Amino acid sequence: MPGLLFDMDGVLYEGERPVAGAAGVIRWCRDQTIPHLFLTNTTSRPRQALARKLERMGIHIDAGQILTPPVAALRWLRQHARGPVALFVPEATRGEFAECEIAADDYPGPVAAVVVGDLGEGWDFATLNRAFRLLMDPAEPPLVALGMTRYWRAEDGLRLDTGPFVRALEYACGREAVVLGKPAAEFFHAGVENSAAGLPSTTASRPHAYSRARTKG
Amino acid sequence: MPGLLFDMDGVLYEGERPVAGAAGVIRWCRDQTIPHLFLTNTTSRPRQALARKLERMGIHIDAGQILTPPVAALRWLRQHARGPVALFVPEATRGEFAECEIAADDYPGPVAAVVVGDLGEGWDFATLNRAFRLLMDPAEPPLVALGMTRYWRAEDGLRLDTGPFVRALEYACGREAVVLGKPAAEFFHAGVENSAAGLPSTTASRPHAYSRARTKG
Repeated sequence: MPGLLFDMDGVLYEGERPVAGAAGVIRWCRDQTIPHLFLTNTTSRPRQALARKLERMGIHIDAGQILTPPVAALRWLRQHARGPVALFVPEATRGEFAECEIAADDYPGPVAAVVVGDLGEGWDFATLNRAFRLLMDPAEPPLVALGMTRYWRAEDGLRLDTGPFVRALEYACGREAVVLGKPAAEFFHAGVENSAAGLPSTTASRPHAYSRARTKG
Repeated sequence: MPGLLFDMDGVLYEGERPVAGAAGVIRWCRDQTIPHLFLTNTTSRPRQALARKLERMGIHIDAGQILTPPVAALRWLRQHARGPVALFVPEATRGEFAECEIAADDYPGPVAAVVVGDLGEGWDFATLNRAFRLLMDPAEPPLVALGMTRYWRAEDGLRLDTGPFVRALEYACGREAVVLGKPAAEFFHAGVENSAAGLPSTTASRPHAYSRARTKG
């Protein structure tokens, strides 16, 4: 087996409860020196926090083995975008893009890419319209989506996630987003490229409509 | 010919300039007693204002002959919705729904329908999320869209219209909107039903991606 990509939420743990047998499987992979990576759509928690969470469950991995949409997006931007990047992501996620030239809020464009994550309460008409206007530049900068999660379950009820705002912008500008998050192929490809030994043949993932038990960072 | 549905913007006028020959065609229809209606996606201007605009161009029609998305939506709600309706429309449009029971902003649901128009600066995360939560009620209230216009050209640049926000809600709740505005079939059907003599066989319309020369009411 050339390698394995593991989903995390629902595969290794459910909320704060480890999935039975998960720790053993990961240990076996390491013992057999099978290259493996962990994929998650979580954008609100740094990778170190996720690694510590696994640690508490007896699963010992390096934070660098976790592929999140921002990490995959950064890889994608390195290859495809030259110039300032407009970020529409929560504060906790901005740090992942530290090596990029970030366009200021009043930057008129053109930008090299428009990156959209779970901005939550940060979305208002002016902000979404600003993303739209940047996308309508004749240079047609790519729209990069940090996942397409529809919504998540907060303590006070359901909350819109990244996907709906990406769909709004796709419809408005008439172009499709590059989606870097499950279940987009591009995200799994990034995992394959990140994986130490090249091509893994299998992924362990369960489809779900929204990220359960998500914790704000 | 059983009847005619006329588009307005781009067919009868372009901005403030009448289209050559338009007045003559409408006069001919009236002289021949051919039933005819006027369809427009404009939701920001009352029908009386549109009729007065045509009047200045020498086209004499009754405001009641103009079918706008709010008028078509009201017809649709009368037939399909029983109970309070949640409105996400600009202030100028609310009046068209005076006969409906309007759900207050803090109404927890279930509502009989969620009506979405060009709320513009009125959109923020909390407002869009409120529409989303109402749509996620187990009763699955219909999402009624006052057109699917992508954007319009304001004096200070492009601005998102109704369509992108409807797409966001469709994606989030996993259901399709009932679209009452060009080019949705439902809107033309409403025109046919509104038309005095029943089934018109022809429509005069030019497709366009956004409403040109739109004026805020």
